[in-house]
Amino acid sequence: MIVIGIDPGVARTGYGVLRKGGRYPVPLDYGCIETAADHTQAERLLEIYERVSALFDEYEPAWVVLEKLFFSKNVTTAMRVSEARGILLLAAEQRKIPIAEYTPNQIKQAVTGSGRADKHQVQEMMRRLLRLREVPQPDDTADGLAVALCHINMVR
Amino acid sequence: MIVIGIDPGVARTGYGVLRKGGRYPVPLDYGCIETAADHTQAERLLEIYERVSALFDEYEPAWVVLEKLFFSKNVTTAMRVSEARGILLLAAEQRKIPIAEYTPNQIKQAVTGSGRADKHQVQEMMRRLLRLREVPQPDDTADGLAVALCHINMVR
Repeated sequence: MIVIGIDPGVARTGYGVLRKGGRYPVPLDYGCIETAADHTQAERLLEIYERVSALFDEYEPAWVVLEKLFFSKNVTTAMRVSEARGILLLAAEQRKIPIAEYTPNQIKQAVTGSGRADKHQVQEMMRRLLRLREVPQPDDTADGLAVALCHINMVR
Repeated sequence: MIVIGIDPGVARTGYGVLRKGGRYPVPLDYGCIETAADHTQAERLLEIYERVSALFDEYEPAWVVLEKLFFSKNVTTAMRVSEARGILLLAAEQRKIPIAEYTPNQIKQAVTGSGRADKHQVQEMMRRLLRLREVPQPDDTADGLAVALCHINMVR
């Protein structure tokens, strides 16, 4: 079973592609889709859409898992990130891939044992749990992996 | 010049297709894309995406015009509507159609002369200005037409 976890954003969308099987999940791919600040919001959404669509087509995941956006102090930011979330939901639904969502606290709890873990702890836990040589960079990438790993732990 | 105005929403997305030319804008099409409350958010976004994509392909507008979402008291609603806005921006950008946006106040001001007009006044002004037999229903449809008409007045 292949799971793609995504930490949605406009400037940086982190993703992790994990295969569940055997004792440990195997990281097949991970990274961060970055878009340029001098592009329009619509251009950036299209860039994210094309990149995630290509990922979904390449790995044909059994699940797409997103980090849920919670009430943000900055509503303008929350609305722009929601626009990106909308196109991620669309890209998954167009391929009839089931979608799961977890809150940031659920994800941190699942992968570090604490809902209050900081970014560095999540990055370090991803390195250990997925037996990576380096800590995943930037933290958006680690978050994408953590989202996928959280779902694998939940459905176990 | 054809302009498509859209009032974004998840349950109801109102739209109006106007042709500018001659003395008065001509309404080519208008209506409301409704999605079922018992569908998932992703299903509803896909339904909206497919309907607006078909509209864009049929009318090949020179502009897609959206109502800007302002800070909402209900942030959860604002985030869900933003997800719908994201897929509208995507559908326009995929076709390289220029996008314009106006605030609700700008739109009301442009079509009724008052930024504080209520829904019924906007509906009645659309009926008059576009020489429709009936008031456009529901108000989301009238708002879609008003968004398009606002832009036509602005670029005049």
